Amino acid sequence: MLVQTQSVTFQRELRLQSGAVLPQVTLAYETYGQLNQDRSNAIYILHALSGDAHVAGYNSSDDTKPGWWEDAVGPGKAFDTDRYFVICSNVIGGCRGSTGPASINPVTGKPYGLSFPVVTVADMVETQRWLLDYLGIDQLLTVTGGSMGGMQALQWAVSYPDRVRSAMILASTARLSAQTIALNEVARQAIYADPNWNHGDYYNSAPPNAGLAVARMIGHITYLSDTSMRDKFGRRLQERERFGYDFNTEFAVESYLRYRGNAFTRRFDANSFLYITKAMDYFDLSYGLPSLADAFVTAKAKFLVVSYTSDWLYPSWQSKELVRSLLQNGLDTTYVEIESDYGHDSFLLEVDRLAELTHDFLTQLAPALHQTVSTPNHIAANP
Amino acid sequence: MLVQTQSVTFQRELRLQSGAVLPQVTLAYETYGQLNQDRSNAIYILHALSGDAHVAGYNSSDDTKPGWWEDAVGPGKAFDTDRYFVICSNVIGGCRGSTGPASINPVTGKPYGLSFPVVTVADMVETQRWLLDYLGIDQLLTVTGGSMGGMQALQWAVSYPDRVRSAMILASTARLSAQTIALNEVARQAIYADPNWNHGDYYNSAPPNAGLAVARMIGHITYLSDTSMRDKFGRRLQERERFGYDFNTEFAVESYLRYRGNAFTRRFDANSFLYITKAMDYFDLSYGLPSLADAFVTAKAKFLVVSYTSDWLYPSWQSKELVRSLLQNGLDTTYVEIESDYGHDSFLLEVDRLAELTHDFLTQLAPALHQTVSTPNHIAANP
Repeated sequence: MLVQTQSVTFQRELRLQSGAVLPQVTLAYETYGQLNQDRSNAIYILHALSGDAHVAGYNSSDDTKPGWWEDAVGPGKAFDTDRYFVICSNVIGGCRGSTGPASINPVTGKPYGLSFPVVTVADMVETQRWLLDYLGIDQLLTVTGGSMGGMQALQWAVSYPDRVRSAMILASTARLSAQTIALNEVARQAIYADPNWNHGDYYNSAPPNAGLAVARMIGHITYLSDTSMRDKFGRRLQERERFGYDFNTEFAVESYLRYRGNAFTRRFDANSFLYITKAMDYFDLSYGLPSLADAFVTAKAKFLVVSYTSDWLYPSWQSKELVRSLLQNGLDTTYVEIESDYGHDSFLLEVDRLAELTHDFLTQLAPALHQTVSTPNHIAANP
Repeated sequence: MLVQTQSVTFQRELRLQSGAVLPQVTLAYETYGQLNQDRSNAIYILHALSGDAHVAGYNSSDDTKPGWWEDAVGPGKAFDTDRYFVICSNVIGGCRGSTGPASINPVTGKPYGLSFPVVTVADMVETQRWLLDYLGIDQLLTVTGGSMGGMQALQWAVSYPDRVRSAMILASTARLSAQTIALNEVARQAIYADPNWNHGDYYNSAPPNAGLAVARMIGHITYLSDTSMRDKFGRRLQERERFGYDFNTEFAVESYLRYRGNAFTRRFDANSFLYITKAMDYFDLSYGLPSLADAFVTAKAKFLVVSYTSDWLYPSWQSKELVRSLLQNGLDTTYVEIESDYGHDSFLLEVDRLAELTHDFLTQLAPALHQTVSTPNHIAANP
């Protein structure tokens, strides 16, 4: 499946939650499948910390890897592009086509760096609403995402109750925990500690790759589980038979982390890492309210909340807390805790269970979209 | 309780597991209480990654803090210095008085730095045996420690079965897991990434404090639990009412981590952090054997194994695996899983439960030591 990343620049001011103003905003996005005549089959997929607009397929025939959720998005998959019109965009603050700290500040003609204003999950969602208006879609069939994607989906349901019929929240939370803030902060400290970071001013010099790699390695440990690391690596040595009694890479798990940490520096901007983790830290739908339940008094969506048994970054108690708050508002809520050893990554990997759940959830929500017999050739079905 | 740190230098070669040789070894140690006439009341306490010989009391009247396990060691405490002669020494590879990478290499007259040979837990225990010989003690009543201290205690029971009557293993493991290796490696990478580290050669220049602080912050997160961080910090802001929308310290948990990370750099050597974590990574009593049970075929000690429900760094399954291996060898083993929210730090904090357990365990082991009615003044009781 070949898909083009598109982008739209909104030549208007975005007033952020902080009070700061961005003079203009560009969003990179991709779409898959066809919008139906009554524009009722749109699904907005929202990405996590290191994701981007390229959720599935290939941007060119030279690509060696498909999009980040290839297993869940496509014809016949959990987000069936034969039935649904799927949208995915890069968040502001990011570095994959949307406006972020590496973008040129139109006022100065130079990259923003740390002069880029701090953005929040609500700010991200505000720009996504602009994109929805631009695409001419009044209401989404569903908003969904895992991790920070789930936070955005929750924010959609709270900020724009009339624009979303449902929200599917995977491996996420209504407010970031102390442990997750702590992990984000240590990752940021690893970037600050790299002299190449230079207070965010490195776009004309060597970037802080060493610090960013450490930040990413911390992240990778938190995306896996004790069990999945034991199963995948154990105490296996990498390309050697015996201990070397030195500080070279020896264990397979070390080799994996170093590889992933270094690879990340080739596709991600360290400042974006700072801004996006900060947006997550600030995320708390109960902020300024007596209780979390008060956050959902205006919400109307139908909710599917999914957590995974081995996810210790967004453990099930956080989803259960969310579900209690939704139910206190009488909202139609389904909660599923999936048994999985894959840790936080489960939301990306447990696609068979996800396909079952989304099928049931969306069929109930929009039976008409499922009455159409799907034809083997989706191009013929969507001329 | 005032106690002096002592030290002994062994002017003899230490042949390490790696095959490398240290020309001489200094051990810093402290002792508490009195060795009884038949020398049967000695307890060796073994410290974890960042510990030292100063396990309890004060080294001088100016000290603001007591030793690292003050709540567990002293008159009437879990390790009752009215009854027992308690020994604690700093591990080799460390930086608190024992020979390590910051020590002067007697051959070159300069600090070892990375030319210091990689040491293992078995090497640490070998030097502790030298100290035991030097103190004239044939057999320890017990060896005990949490975390890496528990690894050393296990190694004692395996390497010198005739020298230990019992071993108390707290929050530890018989072989380091992939997850813990991964966390150690990321912490090391944070040090490597600091240009001040300079491949370990910084003893005449600014030390790699930024990298070491990040390493320590990672550690601190792993010593706590999701629950304890929620209870202790939650999403509380530090000395401010509202979000600042910047990258300053805002959340209490961030402030705590930064403080602890920076404080650590004032008392710990970055190279020692590398050597000690590497020793932990190598620790695997089953290395080269068909099974873990085979590691204990020559062991004779009576074992008390303790794990803590919220300890995700050394989770209970690792203690249970150890216990199964001990029982397969018919060894007298007691296993207790303590309900606690304190995470890995539980072994330091849950001293009341520990005092009960050690009292029962040691009374059964050495009833004679407990028949003596303890007098209020322990100096009078041990003239």
